[in-house]
Amino acid sequence: LPAPAESDGLSVVLVNTRNPLNIGAAARAMSNFGFMDLRLVKPYEASFREARSAIGASEVLAAAREYKSVAEAVADCTLVVGTTSAARRELQHPLRRLDDGAKLIRKRFRSGRVAILFGSEKRGLANQDLSHCHWLLRIPTREEHGSMNLGQAVAVCLYELWRAGKPVKPAGRTRHASAGDLERITTLLLETLRLSGYLGVGGKDARRSASPDEKMRRLVRRLNLSSPDAELWLGMLRQIGWKLKADRVIR
Amino acid sequence: LPAPAESDGLSVVLVNTRNPLNIGAAARAMSNFGFMDLRLVKPYEASFREARSAIGASEVLAAAREYKSVAEAVADCTLVVGTTSAARRELQHPLRRLDDGAKLIRKRFRSGRVAILFGSEKRGLANQDLSHCHWLLRIPTREEHGSMNLGQAVAVCLYELWRAGKPVKPAGRTRHASAGDLERITTLLLETLRLSGYLGVGGKDARRSASPDEKMRRLVRRLNLSSPDAELWLGMLRQIGWKLKADRVIR
Repeated sequence: LPAPAESDGLSVVLVNTRNPLNIGAAARAMSNFGFMDLRLVKPYEASFREARSAIGASEVLAAAREYKSVAEAVADCTLVVGTTSAARRELQHPLRRLDDGAKLIRKRFRSGRVAILFGSEKRGLANQDLSHCHWLLRIPTREEHGSMNLGQAVAVCLYELWRAGKPVKPAGRTRHASAGDLERITTLLLETLRLSGYLGVGGKDARRSASPDEKMRRLVRRLNLSSPDAELWLGMLRQIGWKLKADRVIR
Repeated sequence: LPAPAESDGLSVVLVNTRNPLNIGAAARAMSNFGFMDLRLVKPYEASFREARSAIGASEVLAAAREYKSVAEAVADCTLVVGTTSAARRELQHPLRRLDDGAKLIRKRFRSGRVAILFGSEKRGLANQDLSHCHWLLRIPTREEHGSMNLGQAVAVCLYELWRAGKPVKPAGRTRHASAGDLERITTLLLETLRLSGYLGVGGKDARRSASPDEKMRRLVRRLNLSSPDAELWLGMLRQIGWKLKADRVIR
């Protein structure tokens, strides 16, 4: 399971953020997903100070820089993307859904810095802020409840940006039980069921179309056992069968 | 740009959550992505009360239910998935990365209810909680900073679950066993193994890190039983247990 590496191509820009908890949450998600460059445009001053001094404040927060305007904050970026909730209908920008937009952003990491802008908790990005953006990104939410918590919106966007760049997944490693093991389990299970009286000793049950042996063989195959688990079941069935036989001899 | 519709196949289960802000944040993300069934296992009482009375508390919070144990909370679910951070290396469950796991979870929505478990802020899910899970889900984060904020982790998981459900999949036909049936099988199996002498009567085996109960609970979940097969195994185990007890009485 490959983890994301630090990614230097992206700057997260928080504009007019009010709540220090949200600044802290954004920084934490950045650190989780390996995006380390945080920029704050006119945060409420006390918020930034409080977030920075919070327990467990990350190196992301320590290195965060403050800007007086969006223009200054994104000056070195070659692509500027704004985020918006589904509620806004009057947009004059191209609007891309997060999963589609993230792929485009990833492609741009190598040719220059990309900025992704998040607006204030109450109002989102102002038109003035939006005018600096090449296009807008929308997290797909329910129509009835489009407005996301800021820290959660940052986390979801960064997760998707990481995901869009993930390497090909490695092949699975499960060792499956051999047919021989499955047949040994079937045999032991049948013996146990006969010793316990669940199945008649005769074997064939005339009322049924399939023999108990066939039914149990299929039942065991449906378990789809791994090789180590097959060993465990073999051990348990051996012990149960031994006990049932021992009890019978004593009687 | 299609928005997610309400999805009734998933229950979000928060176990031992401490911080009311996190309960509120989880509920908000659920509402954003259209997952409405919230279950709380032993939340800190004041937290739940505070979250419920918070301004803007959603209908998700209003309808949330409280449970005394994980077993009760997931009894009607046919797939139980735990969440874990990358830091845990000693796991004995299959571990799937969020994007892969989300696809599997979506497939199961139509054939039964799926529970996704989130542990407490400090410790995550305990081994006892994990033993109720069929497999585990990991949000891919940096090795150096694997631990996510609870509200952000919920948001990222639900976003991915929404995303994974974009294309409509044909309905599956397998009815999966409920967690209640799997727990009954586990209990009968443990009883049988103790009667047969495979397990000591005392329960705990000092040499092993996990208790036999937890090991067997995981083993049974790995069988991935259908509902009819679970009935069969229940019947067989009842008969074997009855026979072992009857023999003991006669002796």
